Amino acid sequence: MADGPRSATARAHSNIAFVKYWGNRDHRLRLPANSSISMNLADLHTTTTVAWERSLRLDTLRINGALAADSALERVRNHLDMLRARFKTRRYARVCSMNNFPMGTGIASSASAFAALTMAAGTALGLNLSERELSILARMGSGSAARSIPSGYVEWHAGHSHETSFAETFASSDHWKLIDVIAIVSRAHKRTGSSAGHETAGSSVLQPARIGSAADRMGAVKSAIMRRDFEQFASVVEEDSNLMHAVMMTSDPPLLYWAPLSFAIMKEVRHWRTVEHLQVCFTLDAGPNVHCICASTDADAVVARLQALSSELEILRSTVGCGAYILKP
Amino acid sequence: MADGPRSATARAHSNIAFVKYWGNRDHRLRLPANSSISMNLADLHTTTTVAWERSLRLDTLRINGALAADSALERVRNHLDMLRARFKTRRYARVCSMNNFPMGTGIASSASAFAALTMAAGTALGLNLSERELSILARMGSGSAARSIPSGYVEWHAGHSHETSFAETFASSDHWKLIDVIAIVSRAHKRTGSSAGHETAGSSVLQPARIGSAADRMGAVKSAIMRRDFEQFASVVEEDSNLMHAVMMTSDPPLLYWAPLSFAIMKEVRHWRTVEHLQVCFTLDAGPNVHCICASTDADAVVARLQALSSELEILRSTVGCGAYILKP
Repeated sequence: MADGPRSATARAHSNIAFVKYWGNRDHRLRLPANSSISMNLADLHTTTTVAWERSLRLDTLRINGALAADSALERVRNHLDMLRARFKTRRYARVCSMNNFPMGTGIASSASAFAALTMAAGTALGLNLSERELSILARMGSGSAARSIPSGYVEWHAGHSHETSFAETFASSDHWKLIDVIAIVSRAHKRTGSSAGHETAGSSVLQPARIGSAADRMGAVKSAIMRRDFEQFASVVEEDSNLMHAVMMTSDPPLLYWAPLSFAIMKEVRHWRTVEHLQVCFTLDAGPNVHCICASTDADAVVARLQALSSELEILRSTVGCGAYILKP
Repeated sequence: MADGPRSATARAHSNIAFVKYWGNRDHRLRLPANSSISMNLADLHTTTTVAWERSLRLDTLRINGALAADSALERVRNHLDMLRARFKTRRYARVCSMNNFPMGTGIASSASAFAALTMAAGTALGLNLSERELSILARMGSGSAARSIPSGYVEWHAGHSHETSFAETFASSDHWKLIDVIAIVSRAHKRTGSSAGHETAGSSVLQPARIGSAADRMGAVKSAIMRRDFEQFASVVEEDSNLMHAVMMTSDPPLLYWAPLSFAIMKEVRHWRTVEHLQVCFTLDAGPNVHCICASTDADAVVARLQALSSELEILRSTVGCGAYILKP
């Protein structure tokens, strides 16, 4: 490597899972308990610059301009340690990361963050990593980051080892123009982050049943997406979201990520679909915000109905996004 | 039997389950998928008079003074058919039933109703039925009615046949003076009644896990009640309620019995216990109302906090009740 700073900037999108990741079979490697499916969110992204510098004696991290400390910094340092060991460099890195969406509210900021970080870090070192290698490495930072590397509709194969647990595209972003209309029920940082939550999944008596039936839902969601069958898609996506939250709320300690307003919106969404025949269904990650996945023709109607429910509700909206990419090599 | 009318009046109490009944192994006999535990509610009762009359050509039913028709009448007639066949009478019955609490809101009106009906019907025929026989017969009308026959803290043995599926007392009503403070979130009649709901339980992938782990919770709740250990009691009771609702919301079709306000109260109750150290926990049946089970010393504080949450919230309150009994032979 040359003596000067080596830097690169990468962008990765957040993703929303239709078959959820919750719980690991191997915590250290973040090998998930089950395979999962998601789509990337074009309008929610993290842009990260990594500069490996000779003069640094420690990694530094800025998020949205502010110097990060504590757990965010520690998690990034652990990831950089892993990359240093793998790529045989002793340099430390200056990391600047910008999110265009609120963090810690159940919109997976860690997914886009670790996908962008991994891609920027590798490119800055002059490495030419394959999509699969990037997905595997991003997974080590945050499981769902594996899914933010490939483009469009993505399947993360649970795999049985470090090398076999990666995500890949199974349908392109223009295959089906779904829209994610996100009701921001709360911007507050969640009390139990996903990484800690994953470790409690095994304490629910329901987790084995969720895992044991995940392959059926994977097949049903993939087939619904390939056929653009919204009805089948909706029923499996809502069931899968409810299954994950069922595990969460029966864990020790119980995790209640929903807010009362989340629950009200879930019921409304079901009503809009089953009675008013809008093509919309809900799914919630480890937070209170409700992702209303809509056919593009019905997104405006869903936004209007959400605003009618609560005029103060902040609403984000995203189309299907591409994979992680280099902005500036 | 003499020629004149034979009548009797019985009273039975509602009950609230700590380990829930949801799903049958035999729908016709109402043999439950798992054993359950409850306490009777002294202040919520049904008083039923049954008069077997020679002159009647059909059973008639009044509930709270009004002639009943449709499904309520049909269900009572089916139960009376069963009793007629078993007790070898051809008479029809005039049934008058009074509830002192709202029906169809997740407070088990069918439990107290079929317990009182069964006891009044048998007594009016001059039969001297044992508590076990009454519990078995009441079960045929409504599963949880089996638990409203014995007194105090009750265990319903799932059993493996008609004769072995009955409830009995395992701790008397004065063993531990718990209070049920019930937040009436809605008086509206629920859309999917429990009987129909029980038949969907098997469609959730989570039901086998709930059933398979029920024996552990039975043991834990019984032991907590015997030792008056509120902490252990609370954690298992809330887990069991969440498990049942997890099965409901992942059934086909999904059953969402909670209202947003139910969910808000559940979160508050958890906060009151874990942060403010009140002895209170929540449990919800097939409806939106929240049963806040409290130590008697903390019931006033719980009522005050519920009223502070929503001044319009109607609140019922009950101590532990005795078993079904004859008011007028």
